[in-house]
Amino acid sequence: MAVPLTILTDPRRAEARRELAIAAGTSILAAAHAADIDITATCGGRGRCTSCRVKFVAGAIPPPTIGDEVQLGDALVREGYRLACQCAPTEAVTVQVAPPLEETAFQILGAGTGVAGRVSIASGVDKQLVKVALPREEHHQTSDVEQLAAAVGAAVSEVPPGVLTGLPQSLRDDPAGVTVTTFAGRILAVERGDTTSMRFGLAIDVGTTTVVTTLLELTSGEQLASISSLNPQSVFGGDLMSRIAFAQFNPANLRKLQMRILGLLNQQVSEVCRASGVLPRWIYKVVIVGNTCMHHVLLGIDPSWVGLAPYAPVMRHALTLSARELFLKITPEARVCLLPLVAGFVGADAVAVTLATRLYDGDIERIAVDIGTNGEVLLGSARRLWACSAPAGPAFEGGQIRHGMRAALGAIDRVTVDDDLHVHTIGEADPLGICGSGLLDLVAGLLEAGALDWTGLIQAERRDALPPRLRDRVQMRGEERLVVVRRAGEAGASREIVLTQDDVRQLQLAKGAIASGVAMLQHVAGVPAERVGELLLAGGFGNYLSIASAVRIGLIPELGPGRVRYVGNAASLGAQLCLLSESERARAEAIAGRIEHVSLAAHPDFEQIFVDCMNFPRP
Amino acid sequence: MAVPLTILTDPRRAEARRELAIAAGTSILAAAHAADIDITATCGGRGRCTSCRVKFVAGAIPPPTIGDEVQLGDALVREGYRLACQCAPTEAVTVQVAPPLEETAFQILGAGTGVAGRVSIASGVDKQLVKVALPREEHHQTSDVEQLAAAVGAAVSEVPPGVLTGLPQSLRDDPAGVTVTTFAGRILAVERGDTTSMRFGLAIDVGTTTVVTTLLELTSGEQLASISSLNPQSVFGGDLMSRIAFAQFNPANLRKLQMRILGLLNQQVSEVCRASGVLPRWIYKVVIVGNTCMHHVLLGIDPSWVGLAPYAPVMRHALTLSARELFLKITPEARVCLLPLVAGFVGADAVAVTLATRLYDGDIERIAVDIGTNGEVLLGSARRLWACSAPAGPAFEGGQIRHGMRAALGAIDRVTVDDDLHVHTIGEADPLGICGSGLLDLVAGLLEAGALDWTGLIQAERRDALPPRLRDRVQMRGEERLVVVRRAGEAGASREIVLTQDDVRQLQLAKGAIASGVAMLQHVAGVPAERVGELLLAGGFGNYLSIASAVRIGLIPELGPGRVRYVGNAASLGAQLCLLSESERARAEAIAGRIEHVSLAAHPDFEQIFVDCMNFPRP
Repeated sequence: MAVPLTILTDPRRAEARRELAIAAGTSILAAAHAADIDITATCGGRGRCTSCRVKFVAGAIPPPTIGDEVQLGDALVREGYRLACQCAPTEAVTVQVAPPLEETAFQILGAGTGVAGRVSIASGVDKQLVKVALPREEHHQTSDVEQLAAAVGAAVSEVPPGVLTGLPQSLRDDPAGVTVTTFAGRILAVERGDTTSMRFGLAIDVGTTTVVTTLLELTSGEQLASISSLNPQSVFGGDLMSRIAFAQFNPANLRKLQMRILGLLNQQVSEVCRASGVLPRWIYKVVIVGNTCMHHVLLGIDPSWVGLAPYAPVMRHALTLSARELFLKITPEARVCLLPLVAGFVGADAVAVTLATRLYDGDIERIAVDIGTNGEVLLGSARRLWACSAPAGPAFEGGQIRHGMRAALGAIDRVTVDDDLHVHTIGEADPLGICGSGLLDLVAGLLEAGALDWTGLIQAERRDALPPRLRDRVQMRGEERLVVVRRAGEAGASREIVLTQDDVRQLQLAKGAIASGVAMLQHVAGVPAERVGELLLAGGFGNYLSIASAVRIGLIPELGPGRVRYVGNAASLGAQLCLLSESERARAEAIAGRIEHVSLAAHPDFEQIFVDCMNFPRP
Repeated sequence: MAVPLTILTDPRRAEARRELAIAAGTSILAAAHAADIDITATCGGRGRCTSCRVKFVAGAIPPPTIGDEVQLGDALVREGYRLACQCAPTEAVTVQVAPPLEETAFQILGAGTGVAGRVSIASGVDKQLVKVALPREEHHQTSDVEQLAAAVGAAVSEVPPGVLTGLPQSLRDDPAGVTVTTFAGRILAVERGDTTSMRFGLAIDVGTTTVVTTLLELTSGEQLASISSLNPQSVFGGDLMSRIAFAQFNPANLRKLQMRILGLLNQQVSEVCRASGVLPRWIYKVVIVGNTCMHHVLLGIDPSWVGLAPYAPVMRHALTLSARELFLKITPEARVCLLPLVAGFVGADAVAVTLATRLYDGDIERIAVDIGTNGEVLLGSARRLWACSAPAGPAFEGGQIRHGMRAALGAIDRVTVDDDLHVHTIGEADPLGICGSGLLDLVAGLLEAGALDWTGLIQAERRDALPPRLRDRVQMRGEERLVVVRRAGEAGASREIVLTQDDVRQLQLAKGAIASGVAMLQHVAGVPAERVGELLLAGGFGNYLSIASAVRIGLIPELGPGRVRYVGNAASLGAQLCLLSESERARAEAIAGRIEHVSLAAHPDFEQIFVDCMNFPRP
């Protein structure tokens, strides 16, 4: 039986559409190619890249395949993107093809959320195929590199020694010539034959807890692969302060932290390369963002004083190194650009978020909240920009919560409370624990049901006022107040899963840190809630939480419908912007110079605001 | 009994002299200090430096002590220099003190021979003690490096990441402040406390056979230590061509050669530092010279095509790296300056020789011959400069000679022939073999005595014409013609030492290479012998050979008395000049661009000239 399939072939022209009838089991990609509709399939339709992605705009969106999840990531999957090669519709659907690769403009992934929009691609990485004339007579007075420089119009001083080592062989090896890669006039590589179409870069976001490395094609802006891993430094301390304490006045420990992160980055590079079929030597530019401590540790810079008042960073300026200097296993002379920092606890990641959210632009004050172990809050417009750090700690990642866990298979990620407590787990697997978004929902629901009061106390004494099934879950065990989320055996739970009074306190500390950061910036900038145009939720966790729950527990202020948006991993998006566009990278430097750092602890009004923010909003 | 001692205290004023009467056994240094005559003694009179050196200008020059030989080197010892702290005169002498250290001018060691003269010292390495203001309040928006850059008036971009790693600790450690070292505006090091007086550099001459590393104080130009070692690459091939063949199209072997030379350099650095009490981290500038192949291998650049016609170098331009990039164990950001090259077989060593001999200057054409395994010949004046390579091979170092050896203890280094054959050995030890200078004397003497004819044939058939004792030494053993230099047991020889017909042929090849280089340059430049102002003998071997013997065998042309001079290790001297003076380094670049490379083998007249030069001059 034929299935009707409508393909919108040009996102800018609604009339550009094709109606097909395809056989069941045929992939959208195969059907499109059979009908001469161009959908790019860089990997050949093997689910190994993202180039054939389509967006479902009408009809039921099929559940994501593993390929969709791995290649596209959750943000795109949630927006209705699927890989055309992996998807065979079983009922009538309409899909829209992604912008073709030939357009040299970059639609930021997650741009469905309105971040950044499109930018012109000009990564600064240029490749040209040249034939270098080599003299044949002995009386010549020249050298290989002089002939090469003459052929590409560069100065010999722009050829780093690392490029010279294999130069003579490359020049004499292939009659097609050599491909010379340059960046800002500097020669990065000389490869035998024609490799001009191989031009890749990496955007790396080094977070305290999570490290995300994304591989992009530098002509199209196509995202070829992305990988997110736990920062392996975590074993030496979950949050920044404990990480700094570990390395403080202890060069051997600093070296350990540095080796851990360098090791992970090289592992990620090798994985994104393997997933996409790109060779590491074709990667010529890298943009790295991260908070100040992660930045310093990556460079082997002593972060001891970043952790001591007045929390002075050792450096703040943008820095460009060679991959060789950073021991990154890509083209040795590839340029690794570290975006600038603002202060000891406001790093390049905050600069990248500001860039990606275009917070620096427009008349209306907006707020961006990057929720993470070491969160940041930004507020501003074209007039001024403020930033502060909001050290939430690991509660949002499930850390220091009795049955907390990261957002992995089996984690309770959604909770509703009515006359009882209902949960959803990731992968709909048997529940193993609670992750951050589940925790938020749970506490918001318990507040709404009256099982928690506004100070955060579990209402064990007043449980009789609750509906019977909920009442049974609110308990006093010895001295400990707790809520039984799942009993052992209930809905597949292999053990009891509870929320303790201490867990609630941990969440209060975490949400209090973020909320007081927001409140303080509004206070310093003199921008009341009604003047805030929009609040943007960034960061891995920021994209999973329920906005209603976040408002209910007071994590973010009540701004009214439509004024809170998810913007994905904005730090990584900012890094991708700088990777693809040198003018965006220049803009990041300008932004870093504009951001005014607000030191919360040093502000006289902070203590009262923080205490207020620890409590939950009264209904 | 008092010994009369006259000290000339100012080399520029003959009237500045003091007459002393000193007790026997009193050192010149102690006597001078007792009489309030300033002689600098950097090491405190322990024979560990060269600062107290005096030159004997009247009276018997005492035999050199081991301290004289180690610290001053043979060239200075031969010129009559001795360490004042190590020398107690026993008879009336007159000595002249060396230029005081306070004068910021550098008397090139060996300048008694008229090379280079004095240059103003301006190494480019500057140190200043600064106190860096660090903010105490948390609201500051600055960083350690911004405060540092402001204090020294530099840009943050001039601070390399390697300097940043330990910066915060240094800034907070010593109330005296930090010492900031800069080179051409770039910050090389930030050290706690005041280290402004610690400023050292290295001049390194990487020869095919011998590697010389010299440590200099950068304010005074004082030479603190110098070490000469066998190039450990020699085990992979004695001359350049065999060294290149070893590495040709074989990256693993290239890597082996590179590791060998880097290992040796680090060993030499550690030795000169230990000998002088200088810490490696106080070394901020290094100048390296070497032939093209040694240069390429040091940088890990494939030298395969340097060994194949048209012998193209991969690069020729001057290059400055950080010590870190070259794995040199000194201050990681120290600047390592590699002087420019001219052609595949005319390297930075030839440029350094041209610089040190001031060959580029003056109206009269002069010739410089750097005799070594891979020799070079230079000819020129202020008008034009020509250079060619003269691959003599290892014969002058005793290589490929049956009983040849390097100039070490027990080597026959002087030979006279009259009615018999008389030898002198190094250290007057029992003879073990013949070194290059002995070989020259021996062949010159045998030619003069008629035991060799002008074609190089040992005159075994005509031995009856020789004096009886000499006749007995000229023998025919089976097919082999030979001269017995020492019989087993004769004058302590533990075995027979002979000169074979093949040895004579090897010497003819070696001297023919040099002589034909000289002849070719004279031919190309149109400069007959009578117009050659001077011929300068450079290189380790060049300073030991007998000029009379060299002329007799035709190694160098007959120019008449006083027109041939020893100039010491001119390549190393040129490197020292560039180390101490940035304007000399700039001059080296200009010179490299002026030198015209003459490719011998490609010249139509070369073959005839080479054949002529292989023979010995007819009496």
